[in-house]
Amino acid sequence: MLPAEMQVRDYVTGLIKETYKSFGFSPIETPCVEHIENLCSKQGGDNEKLIFKIMKRGDKLDVKNAESESEVTDSGLRYDLTVPLSRFYANHANELPSPFKALQIGSVWRADQPQHGRFRQFVQCDIDILGEAGCLAEIELILATTTLLGRLNFSNFKVRLNERRILKAMALYSGFAEEQFDQVFIILDKMDKIGWDGVKAELTETGFDMEKVERYIHMFAELQESEDGLGYLEEKLSGILEDGVIGNLRTIRKSVESAKACEFELVFDPTLVRGMSYYTGTIFEIEMEEFSSSVAGGGRYDRMIGKFTGKDVPACGFSIGFERIITILMEQGFEIPGASVKKAYLVEKKMPAEKLTEVLKEAKAERENGVQVLVTMMNKNKKFQKEQLMKEGYEEFREFFNR
Amino acid sequence: MLPAEMQVRDYVTGLIKETYKSFGFSPIETPCVEHIENLCSKQGGDNEKLIFKIMKRGDKLDVKNAESESEVTDSGLRYDLTVPLSRFYANHANELPSPFKALQIGSVWRADQPQHGRFRQFVQCDIDILGEAGCLAEIELILATTTLLGRLNFSNFKVRLNERRILKAMALYSGFAEEQFDQVFIILDKMDKIGWDGVKAELTETGFDMEKVERYIHMFAELQESEDGLGYLEEKLSGILEDGVIGNLRTIRKSVESAKACEFELVFDPTLVRGMSYYTGTIFEIEMEEFSSSVAGGGRYDRMIGKFTGKDVPACGFSIGFERIITILMEQGFEIPGASVKKAYLVEKKMPAEKLTEVLKEAKAERENGVQVLVTMMNKNKKFQKEQLMKEGYEEFREFFNR
Repeated sequence: MLPAEMQVRDYVTGLIKETYKSFGFSPIETPCVEHIENLCSKQGGDNEKLIFKIMKRGDKLDVKNAESESEVTDSGLRYDLTVPLSRFYANHANELPSPFKALQIGSVWRADQPQHGRFRQFVQCDIDILGEAGCLAEIELILATTTLLGRLNFSNFKVRLNERRILKAMALYSGFAEEQFDQVFIILDKMDKIGWDGVKAELTETGFDMEKVERYIHMFAELQESEDGLGYLEEKLSGILEDGVIGNLRTIRKSVESAKACEFELVFDPTLVRGMSYYTGTIFEIEMEEFSSSVAGGGRYDRMIGKFTGKDVPACGFSIGFERIITILMEQGFEIPGASVKKAYLVEKKMPAEKLTEVLKEAKAERENGVQVLVTMMNKNKKFQKEQLMKEGYEEFREFFNR
Repeated sequence: MLPAEMQVRDYVTGLIKETYKSFGFSPIETPCVEHIENLCSKQGGDNEKLIFKIMKRGDKLDVKNAESESEVTDSGLRYDLTVPLSRFYANHANELPSPFKALQIGSVWRADQPQHGRFRQFVQCDIDILGEAGCLAEIELILATTTLLGRLNFSNFKVRLNERRILKAMALYSGFAEEQFDQVFIILDKMDKIGWDGVKAELTETGFDMEKVERYIHMFAELQESEDGLGYLEEKLSGILEDGVIGNLRTIRKSVESAKACEFELVFDPTLVRGMSYYTGTIFEIEMEEFSSSVAGGGRYDRMIGKFTGKDVPACGFSIGFERIITILMEQGFEIPGASVKKAYLVEKKMPAEKLTEVLKEAKAERENGVQVLVTMMNKNKKFQKEQLMKEGYEEFREFFNR
């Protein structure tokens, strides 16, 4: 990361910490290296295939006689911040308040093919509320995240909200069997790209019953036409959908709309799926016109912590796409608000110690006044030197000669 | 890292960035994972034995037929920030001003046995000046580092300064051969612990000529007695020591003494060795009464960058012991200056959406005024809940009931 980008990253990181702390989130940090057992089979899904695995060390490593990968590895780099958070909470629950509001900003690694704007090491930024079963968790997560985006001057964004239990009830109502749900949802998730005709065609091609498919698609059509989508589902799915699910979504929508700190739209979107299988309740995403894919995503995962502790703890989290936001800001030529004045002192070579001391004292006085002062020797090609420094944001120059 | 320590870490990190930036250092970031060739045999010394190695992936990995470690690994976690900096500079020199002043704060990994205050993942914080051959580099590095320590309210510390070329010239003068230098310096380095008698005994036991050992020890004794140590060496080592070495140290001492921003002592210490073999000129360390080992160390390494680029670039760096400083501050019960007011809103369960909205609006107004507001449901055991929150720094509580 070159200095120009680092400065934007540092500014955004600072703003994230300030904003999320104002909502009572506490920063924590977890190790980048995890036991291999914790990384595998904790419902990390496809991410598990992308683990950078670390070799055993010393006497424990015997490459020559090893038959398989698992014999030579004992740990790996984390691929998300949710698995480490779960382990952290399992170890420290007694020392933490309940509910616990955690803020994590940290690098994760995925052994993917690197592409434009997609790296094998990248920063994730997660907020999670552990121990809060009610929808106050969702409300605070959405308010905190949207407040942050507002402070970064983003507008015209949309928060899409859905519920895994609604997804499931709609599928059940249509006649799909529980073991088919995942397959159905993967196809539904493509609606944005392939449209309803595409979804219908793909569901049929996969071999699902035409009647069920039509019932399913028809329900979405009715839902789209109804003025109060949640009311429609409440009636339609009565007896199938758990009590309270619709009321929860209404409370979230109402509270967020009234207490939001910047302009955005919050919409119930029954086509929102989200990949991770560990979600158990609400799921949500933020879409921005500036960027085709989502810039934040999250949801409730009430049965993840229990995998580490044996006892389920309600949990809900929201993760902003740190790298995407940085990419957007850099492309927009983002200027850091309130950045310090930057001055460069160019000092002639062979300056005697006494005179150099005077220059350093002046620099000290300016630094104490909040100015960024670079003291550097004057190069032979002073014009080129100044041009280089101007690229780094130095706008004022002072020259010191031995005269 | 629990929230209490994280808050101190975040505060110190912020102060480091602010202070070093005021000296014109630019933040950069390098990947945590490095090619294995870059980590090995770049003069990392003992650290190379402590690399966490990462396995090859996909078709490139063939554990079954592999005979040795090197066949199954292609990368590893960095063990310091100097190797990645060198590679960064090799890749980006054309886009950077010359000299380039880099600031890096990042995790490094060493597969050591973890102990109290010593972890396998820890943060290093380095400043480096690349492209400045003169002692302005050393002066700015020492001023920046000591200014930072002063801002953290440290005092009574001592900067020890020496030169690899003086170490070598003194050994040469005493009759040691160049290939014996490393062995001699390792023993000299123990002077603090074993005293001059110990150094003498160990040098003799190692098999060095008694006459040479006595000449060597005698020179240190004369040096200690002389009022102007640098003057003594200038005369004594005339013809052996390169011109300018003594003058450089004098300029550094004089400039730092006159332009320093807090109280500390800068001493020339001919017994300072520092382990890393890549140092080529000045070496320096900061000692603090509060802590037995050094809290910062650095030096000039003019022949490191060339290993990556084929062309030597003068380089000088100073690294503060981030983890040690955090440990000292935590043990001292450090209080973060200017921390925000923290208020907790306890909301009775089953609060209807309209009333919850009012609470959230009040929270919003306070947050906009810089207060950290935690909105949370009231637990059954309210007294215990408040005690837990007070441990997290919440001092004001407001309770909201559905009445």
